[in-house]
Amino acid sequence: MMMKNRAMTMSKRNNSLKEIADVLWNAESVLLYPHVNMDGDCLGSAVALCAALRKIGKEAYVLIEDEIAAFLRFMEKDYCTEELQIIKEPDVCICIDCGEPERFKYRKDKFFQGKTTICIDHHLTTEPFADLNYIDPKAAATGEIIYELLNGMRIVIDKEIGEALYAAIATDTGNFQYSNTTKNTHEIVAGLFDCGIDHNKVSIQLYQNIRAEKILLQNRTLQTLKLFAQGQAAICCTTKAMLEETGGKMEETEGFIEVLRSISGVEVAVFVKEVTDTTSKISMRSKEKVNVAEISKEFHGGGHMRAAGCTLNMGTSEAMETMIDTIERFLKG
Amino acid sequence: MMMKNRAMTMSKRNNSLKEIADVLWNAESVLLYPHVNMDGDCLGSAVALCAALRKIGKEAYVLIEDEIAAFLRFMEKDYCTEELQIIKEPDVCICIDCGEPERFKYRKDKFFQGKTTICIDHHLTTEPFADLNYIDPKAAATGEIIYELLNGMRIVIDKEIGEALYAAIATDTGNFQYSNTTKNTHEIVAGLFDCGIDHNKVSIQLYQNIRAEKILLQNRTLQTLKLFAQGQAAICCTTKAMLEETGGKMEETEGFIEVLRSISGVEVAVFVKEVTDTTSKISMRSKEKVNVAEISKEFHGGGHMRAAGCTLNMGTSEAMETMIDTIERFLKG
Ligand SMILES: [Mn+2]
Ligand SMILES: [Mn+2]
Repeated sequence: MMMKNRAMTMSKRNNSLKEIADVLWNAESVLLYPHVNMDGDCLGSAVALCAALRKIGKEAYVLIEDEIAAFLRFMEKDYCTEELQIIKEPDVCICIDCGEPERFKYRKDKFFQGKTTICIDHHLTTEPFADLNYIDPKAAATGEIIYELLNGMRIVIDKEIGEALYAAIATDTGNFQYSNTTKNTHEIVAGLFDCGIDHNKVSIQLYQNIRAEKILLQNRTLQTLKLFAQGQAAICCTTKAMLEETGGKMEETEGFIEVLRSISGVEVAVFVKEVTDTTSKISMRSKEKVNVAEISKEFHGGGHMRAAGCTLNMGTSEAMETMIDTIERFLKG
Repeated sequence: MMMKNRAMTMSKRNNSLKEIADVLWNAESVLLYPHVNMDGDCLGSAVALCAALRKIGKEAYVLIEDEIAAFLRFMEKDYCTEELQIIKEPDVCICIDCGEPERFKYRKDKFFQGKTTICIDHHLTTEPFADLNYIDPKAAATGEIIYELLNGMRIVIDKEIGEALYAAIATDTGNFQYSNTTKNTHEIVAGLFDCGIDHNKVSIQLYQNIRAEKILLQNRTLQTLKLFAQGQAAICCTTKAMLEETGGKMEETEGFIEVLRSISGVEVAVFVKEVTDTTSKISMRSKEKVNVAEISKEFHGGGHMRAAGCTLNMGTSEAMETMIDTIERFLKG
């Protein structure tokens, strides 16, 4: 009890990777918690750490609560389970790439039953909430932190662990394009090449694994593409009817807005998603200049300079017109 | 004359970068030759070397014969010219990322007027043909070789040179996805980060600079998408009518086939391009197993395991049907 309290008061600062390593060496069983809506970084990091812990004789599982997307399934051997009781009384519970217990909602109670809880993350907004926390917003991906952790623990990163870490880092950096990518990112990946990874095979898994229905949905969506504000802005929308028509899913529309932003001269990209007949969700992205959070504020939305969103109480056609009017005004002013 | 002949007999082997560096240090004027249909690697490498040579006081220009694509224009300050007489009697002419004088056809005569000619390239098929040659098929991009050359010459790579080299390497490796990417590639890029490059800005220039008409053309083309052979193959076509309809250009169809190959389960992707009413050009790509060169051979075409092509003497509809039949047979057999 004393221990727990001490850890709780410590938790307001970052622990060292050495402290986390010590806890892991002393543990017998470890549960790993990626966030819901698993991406390459949270699953890749969790699988890599899980595989490494098994290599040093620990009982370790990645506890999940949602389906693994097809493009990430290559890294799951027998690490992932939805079975909350897979380890009855875990010594350590680690949440990975996630700083918000709401993002592992159905596993939250189990998480806090861990004798020691750990949070390893790289999100800027994450507040330490576990017994031990390592939050490094300068890391381009949680995968980078896991790489440092395993190196510090002197666990040899084999091909399998290396490929999971490569997937983590490649996806969270948009293949090294995003501004989060650093010199260290490339140095880590250079190190992963020494582990015998087949980066090309991983890339094929990650990027050549798109459902045909998604392509059809994107194609149908882009048929609504409108350029406006003298080509400085582009908008398109996905309706429920389009889902029926193509077999695509609404969650597969993620990334469509990037196609609009990729158009030469387009500074603001807008994507409209039908929720109901009278509700539309709006996403906005800007390229280099416009603060789209300011535009979304007009509709009580939120976000950042380059990515923001809001909800309009109207159908998609009306929502498109509203956004076109607003953004034309905004870009003129 | 003696010198020239000696160089000619030397040319059958690779020279060292040291020998090339010595020639450059001793030159006063240098013309650089990227290949036609300039890509990020040939232009980025040429601009980087040109900028570096000017830094050490040489008169240097990149001699071109075709237009610079919009996504590469950011790296052109005042390096490139089509003016053959920009340097009357160049001490050195260097062809970059290219091992075939036919790929700088209209500049070929001028090239061989150089007192010393040099070829720097990374294509497997390149035979030494210049006075000095450095051909390294293990380099993922010619940009990697230029990086080593400049380091060997102890020329400080500044932000501008670094960004041109980054563009060269990023484009030729498909953002580090392709199998040509090595540990050395990532180490070089890590080195470029030390030169103060803004890799994100370069990526925006390279990848968020697509003509709207190209997107419309891709969209129109994908409306012809057909999956066949139980989803193992995908085909689509671009006709001249689609160019008129969308304002896209036939050369902008490059890359459309990658969308087909990116579909989950698709092993063979086929793209049909209308040349005339009775002529269609076929491109094929495979993901991991099928040797598409063997399929193209049936139609007197050529290519490699994973990328091949052929020409059919028929319109696009008939060509699509022919390819579907052939590939279905092939995948069954
Ligand atoms: Mn992440
Ligand atoms: Mn090249």
